[in-house]
Amino acid sequence: MAKKNAISPTRQEDYPEWYQQVVKAADLAEHSVVRGCMVIKPWGWGIWEKMQKYLDDQIKKTGHDNVYFPLFIPLDYFQKEADHIEGFAKECAVVTHHRLEKNKHGELVPAGELPQPLIVRPTSEMIIGETVAKWVESYRDLPVKINQWANVVRWEMRTRLFLRSTEFLWQEGHTFHRTKEEAMEEVRKMLDVYVEFCEKILAMPVYKGKKSESEKFPGADATYTFEAMMQDKKALQGGTSHFLGQNFARSSNISFRDEDGEQKFVYSTSWGSTTRYIGALIMVHSDDDGLVLPPRIAPKQVVLVPMLQKEESKQEILNYCESLQKQLEQVQYHDKAIEVVVDTRDIRGGDKKWSWIKKGIPLIVEVGPRDIASDSVFVTKRKKDDISSSSLKREEFISQIASILDSIQKDLFDKAQAFQKAHTHELKSKEEFDKFFAKEDAGFARVYYKEDAKTEKEIQEKYGVTVRCFLEEKAKEGKCIFSNKPCHSKAIFARAY
Amino acid sequence: MAKKNAISPTRQEDYPEWYQQVVKAADLAEHSVVRGCMVIKPWGWGIWEKMQKYLDDQIKKTGHDNVYFPLFIPLDYFQKEADHIEGFAKECAVVTHHRLEKNKHGELVPAGELPQPLIVRPTSEMIIGETVAKWVESYRDLPVKINQWANVVRWEMRTRLFLRSTEFLWQEGHTFHRTKEEAMEEVRKMLDVYVEFCEKILAMPVYKGKKSESEKFPGADATYTFEAMMQDKKALQGGTSHFLGQNFARSSNISFRDEDGEQKFVYSTSWGSTTRYIGALIMVHSDDDGLVLPPRIAPKQVVLVPMLQKEESKQEILNYCESLQKQLEQVQYHDKAIEVVVDTRDIRGGDKKWSWIKKGIPLIVEVGPRDIASDSVFVTKRKKDDISSSSLKREEFISQIASILDSIQKDLFDKAQAFQKAHTHELKSKEEFDKFFAKEDAGFARVYYKEDAKTEKEIQEKYGVTVRCFLEEKAKEGKCIFSNKPCHSKAIFARAY
Repeated sequence: MAKKNAISPTRQEDYPEWYQQVVKAADLAEHSVVRGCMVIKPWGWGIWEKMQKYLDDQIKKTGHDNVYFPLFIPLDYFQKEADHIEGFAKECAVVTHHRLEKNKHGELVPAGELPQPLIVRPTSEMIIGETVAKWVESYRDLPVKINQWANVVRWEMRTRLFLRSTEFLWQEGHTFHRTKEEAMEEVRKMLDVYVEFCEKILAMPVYKGKKSESEKFPGADATYTFEAMMQDKKALQGGTSHFLGQNFARSSNISFRDEDGEQKFVYSTSWGSTTRYIGALIMVHSDDDGLVLPPRIAPKQVVLVPMLQKEESKQEILNYCESLQKQLEQVQYHDKAIEVVVDTRDIRGGDKKWSWIKKGIPLIVEVGPRDIASDSVFVTKRKKDDISSSSLKREEFISQIASILDSIQKDLFDKAQAFQKAHTHELKSKEEFDKFFAKEDAGFARVYYKEDAKTEKEIQEKYGVTVRCFLEEKAKEGKCIFSNKPCHSKAIFARAY
Repeated sequence: MAKKNAISPTRQEDYPEWYQQVVKAADLAEHSVVRGCMVIKPWGWGIWEKMQKYLDDQIKKTGHDNVYFPLFIPLDYFQKEADHIEGFAKECAVVTHHRLEKNKHGELVPAGELPQPLIVRPTSEMIIGETVAKWVESYRDLPVKINQWANVVRWEMRTRLFLRSTEFLWQEGHTFHRTKEEAMEEVRKMLDVYVEFCEKILAMPVYKGKKSESEKFPGADATYTFEAMMQDKKALQGGTSHFLGQNFARSSNISFRDEDGEQKFVYSTSWGSTTRYIGALIMVHSDDDGLVLPPRIAPKQVVLVPMLQKEESKQEILNYCESLQKQLEQVQYHDKAIEVVVDTRDIRGGDKKWSWIKKGIPLIVEVGPRDIASDSVFVTKRKKDDISSSSLKREEFISQIASILDSIQKDLFDKAQAFQKAHTHELKSKEEFDKFFAKEDAGFARVYYKEDAKTEKEIQEKYGVTVRCFLEEKAKEGKCIFSNKPCHSKAIFARAY
């Protein structure tokens, strides 16, 4: 077969550049001419569609309705919540005019200045809150549980495909509750939906927990999240689930008449998942030959590659592929029909196969005259750091395909989990911490930590390390490695995307 | 049963206001605080999701891949195609700044002026064309057939929910071909996909054909469309399919090396369908009791309304509903499981039933103690101008439900078609035409017409009437009713939305 290491540079040689090359080789996305905005190409979009489908089902199952709110937020709405505006004012797209006209040099220039600028939504708490305030009168109108799939814009200075882009796509859930307890239950439930998605579908093990005060969402009382370890041992934050307390209720006057006759503010939550997941997926599973996709998130699980060198066998091979495709599409995998593509492009067989390896499709099936003669298929499994091929009887392949895909899915999760465990270290002291993060690819440190904004600032300045989350698990009493104060909380520290 | 005419005013009394009230009573959408932008609520979004699902399947089946391009278009890209910029410059949202800062009065004002303004996409021909130009080198790279689901913004001065809004949602397909013939075939194929969707799913009969030069898309060589008749006898344009010729290929230099070694420009097409369909759906089928939905586009086909007045029978009734729901969800209707909602809200039974009538759900099933005793269900069918109820044995209902839904679907189409036919008139002369359109609710006129921009302008100024489309059918030679010149083309004229 062909060359080894389809991607250059390798992960070892230059991790950030390797990432760009994997995206390119898999034809997932590219930079657009608009600063920081990306073009998502068919294979990348196929992954996002799968993510959307799974998450949308879960969001509906947990009792939420989909809706759609405007792209624009009036400036005066946007600034009602003080922390919120602080958090977003520095990086937002501002619409100031509503038409173009020619100036005296014949150049098109903005015209029709708006009485008030509009902000392209960086998130929709404000406009949804102001609207829901009109929907809710009595406790009988609660809870309100809505979600939207939308594009949002945050003017990022340094952008990277999927990981950080000026425009990105996401779902944002917004819920409004009668009690604090009910709102907190919602926050945790949706965090669990995300974690389950990451672990079961993306095969990505995570640490979940609460953000520190300095890292939480602008306007939230508390932010819950989860963190995954990339192959360069940096952390990447997954979805977030925010307990907004009564902050947005107060700023937008979202109140209701309770059963006891009193007028009260609601408690609200919000939670979101973005196209950034695709970046995480790439960085956790891919290797020096390109993208590796867990079967449950792959746009297609199988590609059939007919070997069409000889004109006389061409039609027979195409017929064989067609019937094989039909048979495979009858097989259920993870409650859905297996998805198969037949690649009949007129390019060299080796290039064709490698294009699919670089795209990370789980199974590549080559079909040539000899395979047909023996009623066999030549199957290549695409796993991380492992491309192995074998010949299987056709019926054997069909009866085993679901379990083959399951084993690839499991194998990817296990590998990622082993990697994460191997590079997460319990540190006992400030000295160990200093020594640990002196190394650039240190990994995750798990330490006793009593929250303190000043310490976090120092650590960030010194090492570029942040507290990723306070772990959910209640630790037995220990001492904060920075302050020596007694505490029950352990946190994960790491360098992060 | 309760009052007649849930919607006030009726269609007869005030059609535009009736429309607004139907949207409100069905809880489909509302105006947002942002001028011209709407909030789409769960029931309205449910309809859009169904539209998306159906169209997306058809778009994929016809060989297109989904992608995503940026929300923003740089001003200099936007103005490359002269007609295109003429068509959109007067109504576009312009982003000029990328952050906010406080002025000396402490007010937030736009800051960080962009070197070049960005236009919020009103359509994506320009940015997609510029990108595809880089993807295409050889004839082997063609055709490129892509589609995106996106929000677009056109700064409309007079807006109406769904019918005309500043931000709206749509799919936009963009394809690039080696030959003119192949591009024209694509244009017609996608027009047919839309027409089939309208007729089969939305139960909306249409006239299809070509737009006149004055009504075509800015930048197109030809625009194909179809027109449906609303109940006030005005026309509403459905999806459009544009043959762009080589216009965008020239302005964005989308060229390829053909098999003969020559460098040639591609032929391109674009085609789109929008949330406006929801407005058409409402206006074609609804009546003075509110929304009426064809079963194939209804977010749910059936609501079960348990009659929970008496505490002692409550649990039994809920159990009965639950088992009935499960049974109904086993039934296939139009290749999908029937979708059922159980309405357990704590409100008066009559109000509850009427809320579903106003929402246009095809079947309302009331379940009380007497129904359970006789193993029956009390079924109300929601058709246009016809709400009829009858008691059916449970098993009978289950075995018949698919055909009941089919008959509602067919009935809605037949009614709409009869209405359209009854109000489409063949006119033989300019005199008949003048007389016909002197009436405000004239309907459609079908006439021999030889295209002439001056005539169209006059007619528009005099009657507010436009040529909707040249019909596809080849008529035998006749004489244009305006110019008396011989011609083979018949056109539909009407007042329009």
